[in-house]
Amino acid sequence: MRVFAGTPGTATGLFLRIAQCIFAAGSIASMASTHSFFNFTAFCYLIAAMGLQVIWSFGLALIDAYAIVQKKVLHSPVLISLFVVTATLSLAAASASAGITTLYFYDLGHCSVDNECQKYQASVGLAICCCFTIATSSLIMLWLLASG
Amino acid sequence: MRVFAGTPGTATGLFLRIAQCIFAAGSIASMASTHSFFNFTAFCYLIAAMGLQVIWSFGLALIDAYAIVQKKVLHSPVLISLFVVTATLSLAAASASAGITTLYFYDLGHCSVDNECQKYQASVGLAICCCFTIATSSLIMLWLLASG
Repeated sequence: MRVFAGTPGTATGLFLRIAQCIFAAGSIASMASTHSFFNFTAFCYLIAAMGLQVIWSFGLALIDAYAIVQKKVLHSPVLISLFVVTATLSLAAASASAGITTLYFYDLGHCSVDNECQKYQASVGLAICCCFTIATSSLIMLWLLASG
Repeated sequence: MRVFAGTPGTATGLFLRIAQCIFAAGSIASMASTHSFFNFTAFCYLIAAMGLQVIWSFGLALIDAYAIVQKKVLHSPVLISLFVVTATLSLAAASASAGITTLYFYDLGHCSVDNECQKYQASVGLAICCCFTIATSSLIMLWLLASG
């Protein structure tokens, strides 16, 4: 297997993992600070998916940091294929929440509680940023798996 | 580039393309038969994404059929990378619509017009089936591109 930017055990890979973790944590924090997220199935799903993402990204960041310190190259097919699964889960959660936020913001044109909608929007925005970093990682990983 | 099941110019590939086209068309038909879909941004987005999918899948199915008849193998990197883009668009549209359908069905517990919700559900279900076939195609294509 080849080594290029973004693969496990490189500085770019570590940066991607940390960015994923921060975006996911920010999304959870913003959503959890609202008073009514538990009334919406999609928002609960977003928190679950982002929670999984935080744990998963943090674990991977630790493995990456270890690989950089030990100057090892880590390529596990199982680890790599799990990326595609978490990327799909996160994209679905972010889209479902974005759909509901758009519904409340533009279609119905009102927000039940003040400042809640801004928090929902911030949470969805961070989740979408998180999706972009995971999508980048997934593409790199799938490429690596196929070309290896 | 290797030739295996699902690649352009094989019978499995043609079957996948036709399945995509039928699921997407079914999703549009079910959604367009409701009276209130245009009030929801996510449902309009679903129709747009599925419309794009119908045209795109139908075009690809024709190319596949031509390749089978002429016994040619078609592998274009541009064609292949477009798959990943349409797969992401369709997944996002299906998830956003699923989020809103869940909101109306379970969270708010009511349906404004009778029989409309069943149609929304059917449309979302078909869109998700469509996503599965596109995801299969995308994975095969990306694999082909990377291993070629």
